[in-house]
Amino acid sequence: MSANREIENLIELMAKLPGLGPRSARRAVLHLIRKRALLLIPLADAMQEVAATARECLNCGNIATADICDICQDDRRATGELCVVEDVADLWAMERAGVFKGRYHVLGGTLSALDAVGPEDLRIPRLIDRIAAEQITEVILALNATVEGQTTAHYIADQLDGQVRLTSLAQGVPIGGELDYLDDGTIGAALRARREI
Amino acid sequence: MSANREIENLIELMAKLPGLGPRSARRAVLHLIRKRALLLIPLADAMQEVAATARECLNCGNIATADICDICQDDRRATGELCVVEDVADLWAMERAGVFKGRYHVLGGTLSALDAVGPEDLRIPRLIDRIAAEQITEVILALNATVEGQTTAHYIADQLDGQVRLTSLAQGVPIGGELDYLDDGTIGAALRARREI
Repeated sequence: MSANREIENLIELMAKLPGLGPRSARRAVLHLIRKRALLLIPLADAMQEVAATARECLNCGNIATADICDICQDDRRATGELCVVEDVADLWAMERAGVFKGRYHVLGGTLSALDAVGPEDLRIPRLIDRIAAEQITEVILALNATVEGQTTAHYIADQLDGQVRLTSLAQGVPIGGELDYLDDGTIGAALRARREI
Repeated sequence: MSANREIENLIELMAKLPGLGPRSARRAVLHLIRKRALLLIPLADAMQEVAATARECLNCGNIATADICDICQDDRRATGELCVVEDVADLWAMERAGVFKGRYHVLGGTLSALDAVGPEDLRIPRLIDRIAAEQITEVILALNATVEGQTTAHYIADQLDGQVRLTSLAQGVPIGGELDYLDDGTIGAALRARREI
């Protein structure tokens, strides 16, 4: 390659990002060099700031810039409802929808015998502690509709049985979804959960 | 959004990279935060290093970390052959192929009446200067096979007519290419440029 060691190094690191390969990393680096003042320097600064401040919320596992995240600190969100998600990305997706007013609990993955992921690896003991500590009345299991997600949901449901109201997200036809493009499993779930109009 | 201002800022900047949108920028930032020591901090450092050192080679327009790039400094590459490309990305692509032993001249774009890009915007005067200064005997026009690329190639060919040997990259069937998937223009060019076996 003709680029210099510093530039090669940047390309190699950029290529490790999800969604970028070697080719798109090269394009991104050229773009960065061309937009040095507008993009490259601000991006380097932003990364350093995040590296210095970002950490896991000790209470819920969300990414925060303090020991306790904004949501856990916000008393208005102490509604007694706790939404259990696999991952911070899922928490962000729920927040973008802007419909849930309670707090979250981020498991940090799903149970997996194959990968030797047990309950203690998943912030499940902490979940059980929070139910008493925060007077939780309803736990919404917003886990992915995958085998691992549903296995984890069943395990948590067993652990919490009788202590709180347990719910999960409804399954059915997505808004704007066309039947012709839906998989059989979704159509089956939507039919079983059909409602009176 | 539930993420903090610093993280939001980083996501917004990442989303400005070519090939990343808001969704993939969020995924990339989560990945970066999880791999803080392995990826986030090295990437921030690499960006700062490139921001501090990267500039355009004063001779050929390549991206360099000195006033004159490695290729222009390398006497072994003073072969008398000069490969004219539109963009640094094209120079990198030629170098990856590893078959050209001469030097490059990066135009920095193509002529465009619509966007008011004239010869003086494109490092074409500098190209003409270099032909005498570096005893160039052959100019290889490796411009893209687009209307703008070919217009620019014709303009340069007119300017240099009689001064040097002028060549362009061969057009034809790509290595591994299947006729069935090629556009008509490429098949036509390959047929016109057919060779004896």
